[in-house]
Amino acid sequence: MNKLKFKILKKVGKARIGQIELNWIKLTTPVFMPVGTKATIKGIILDMLKDPQKIWSEDGIKLILANTFHLYLRPGTHIIKKAGWLHKFENRDKLILTDSGWFQVFSLGLGNTKDSLVKLKPDWVEFRSPYDGSKHFFSPQKVIDIQTDFGSDIMMVLDVPTPWGETNKDIASKHMELTHRRAQMAFEYFLPKYEQARWVLFPIVQGGIFLDLRAKSAEFLSQFAIDWIAIGWLSVGETKEQMYQVLDFLSDKLPESKPRYLMGVWTPEDITEGIKHGVDMFDCVLPTRLGRHWTAFTSKGNIKLRNAQFKDDFWPLDNQCSCFVCKNYSRAYIHHLVKENEMLWAILLSFHNIAFLHQLVEKIKKDMLEN
Amino acid sequence: MNKLKFKILKKVGKARIGQIELNWIKLTTPVFMPVGTKATIKGIILDMLKDPQKIWSEDGIKLILANTFHLYLRPGTHIIKKAGWLHKFENRDKLILTDSGWFQVFSLGLGNTKDSLVKLKPDWVEFRSPYDGSKHFFSPQKVIDIQTDFGSDIMMVLDVPTPWGETNKDIASKHMELTHRRAQMAFEYFLPKYEQARWVLFPIVQGGIFLDLRAKSAEFLSQFAIDWIAIGWLSVGETKEQMYQVLDFLSDKLPESKPRYLMGVWTPEDITEGIKHGVDMFDCVLPTRLGRHWTAFTSKGNIKLRNAQFKDDFWPLDNQCSCFVCKNYSRAYIHHLVKENEMLWAILLSFHNIAFLHQLVEKIKKDMLEN
Repeated sequence: MNKLKFKILKKVGKARIGQIELNWIKLTTPVFMPVGTKATIKGIILDMLKDPQKIWSEDGIKLILANTFHLYLRPGTHIIKKAGWLHKFENRDKLILTDSGWFQVFSLGLGNTKDSLVKLKPDWVEFRSPYDGSKHFFSPQKVIDIQTDFGSDIMMVLDVPTPWGETNKDIASKHMELTHRRAQMAFEYFLPKYEQARWVLFPIVQGGIFLDLRAKSAEFLSQFAIDWIAIGWLSVGETKEQMYQVLDFLSDKLPESKPRYLMGVWTPEDITEGIKHGVDMFDCVLPTRLGRHWTAFTSKGNIKLRNAQFKDDFWPLDNQCSCFVCKNYSRAYIHHLVKENEMLWAILLSFHNIAFLHQLVEKIKKDMLEN
Repeated sequence: MNKLKFKILKKVGKARIGQIELNWIKLTTPVFMPVGTKATIKGIILDMLKDPQKIWSEDGIKLILANTFHLYLRPGTHIIKKAGWLHKFENRDKLILTDSGWFQVFSLGLGNTKDSLVKLKPDWVEFRSPYDGSKHFFSPQKVIDIQTDFGSDIMMVLDVPTPWGETNKDIASKHMELTHRRAQMAFEYFLPKYEQARWVLFPIVQGGIFLDLRAKSAEFLSQFAIDWIAIGWLSVGETKEQMYQVLDFLSDKLPESKPRYLMGVWTPEDITEGIKHGVDMFDCVLPTRLGRHWTAFTSKGNIKLRNAQFKDDFWPLDNQCSCFVCKNYSRAYIHHLVKENEMLWAILLSFHNIAFLHQLVEKIKKDMLEN
């Protein structure tokens, strides 16, 4: 009856290796998911991610993310629907996850004054488009309709995360209650359509840094973890200790048999730690963001290709990396491209950084299987 | 004894289909050569050009151009030599032609005043780097040394083209004589090394729009057309009629058994006309330049993807084109990328435009073979 099939192949401590099947596509977890905000991963031709030789992987990257807020406003839901879903629009025949749009709405600046761009109501959120000032709203039902029109394989519920740094438990609790109320509305709307649809919907556990709230949220939302469950609003400002503490705590509270998605991590270390604490899926904007800032992940830390020290450095970005870029290009060449502002540097660095995180996860899986 | 093997497979009127072999790489002519100025074709991963499925061709693009002037100054000849030639530096295992650097030196502004950046001497040209004001010179011998260090498969001699619009025959004649003198110096320097080297050197016919000068230049330089001969400084300002007139006239004056390279054309029509007049090789910066200005070649003329009319146009850029971009992306998607300033638009448009010119030449060859 579940549309998303998940089985755990091996456990090492709390870490799990699993296999997922959804819409005829199989992938193993833990899995790293590159971010394709506006129906493109910045600087990348999605086609490159399919090519096992390029990305260094058995079967390329099979799951990427897109952002509902951006795509809803531009080019607009109707355009993507008319194109034949996001998959056809951006030329991607693998799985696509879309978020609920909340994070970007929130980033517009929450407030309840007359002039604020965003107004939070119990059952929906109002906001004005940053492009043209036009008025919009997102409700739990509406973001499902939008994501349905996108043809998303995996949809997220509209939640109410507690902003980072929030130490007032009453506020965190209020946000959690709102999140639960909305999840209830979302699933009441979604479940009658579940059998006919090809998509799945994930609830998102909230509760800020308060362990008892997180426990309550995990317990309440487990009823909706039909296919998967997500952990929201971590790794966006708390200390690493707080983050790992919540993850560790939650690992026993979330349903064992469902995959767990930790939303929006920031560093390779977060991914490694996340896996140790039983997380099965990650997304991260850093590979392309760093790429556009001349920076490459390496096994010895980040390097900035703009620096003059690389002008006659004929080593690859990372000599332990097997990606297409490291196999074919030198640091000296990429430094030259940066100095000349040839856009190829952003392409190569973004691609390498995605491949680097992908390989990191693959390597952890391999070690777990062999050990 | 020739390093570049050329045989004519078929003639239709003055147009020729030929086969070239150089450094173990075979290609058929006429051939269109994309421009990779600074050791990268702007916006393209060179790897894409190898892939027959992507570029729509039997065997991808096998010959590209790079610019000596730019690469000599940045990253510098020593860097490219140390990298293991241009091929290794930019990850290209096919043929690379480099120009002599003259065009870019000339573009700095020719003059013989104290302050001018460029000073023309009989046997060399002095110039100052636009990057740091440092002093440099190019002589016929020096540009051969530079191109040798680049590992270029095909080198060009340092010539003295007559600027476009020059109607003073004395000036055109003076430039032609200087061109001949330099070609003589270049080949005297080059020929003793010819047997050992893997590269070939092309002389360049000058003479402006004056047919008798062009005839004289063709006759004089034919002695150096060991492997190939180039036609310089056409299609940079004269009228189309003047250009075609010179081409038509030259087609009987150039050695029949050597391939002919028309340097720097501007439009698809120039390529079609060039082939009719017996030209075997073309380069053109337009595909990537137009690509970066939101413009695509189509079989019905150029279209500008920035225009709002494309926002819900789900057709490919050109429905007669078989390239990777046209098979996989819609105008609506590329329009969306342009509006969002996602760099993928430049990648897709540049690639399509290169593939478009490539297919144009392939189609003419096919028609000639079948007709």
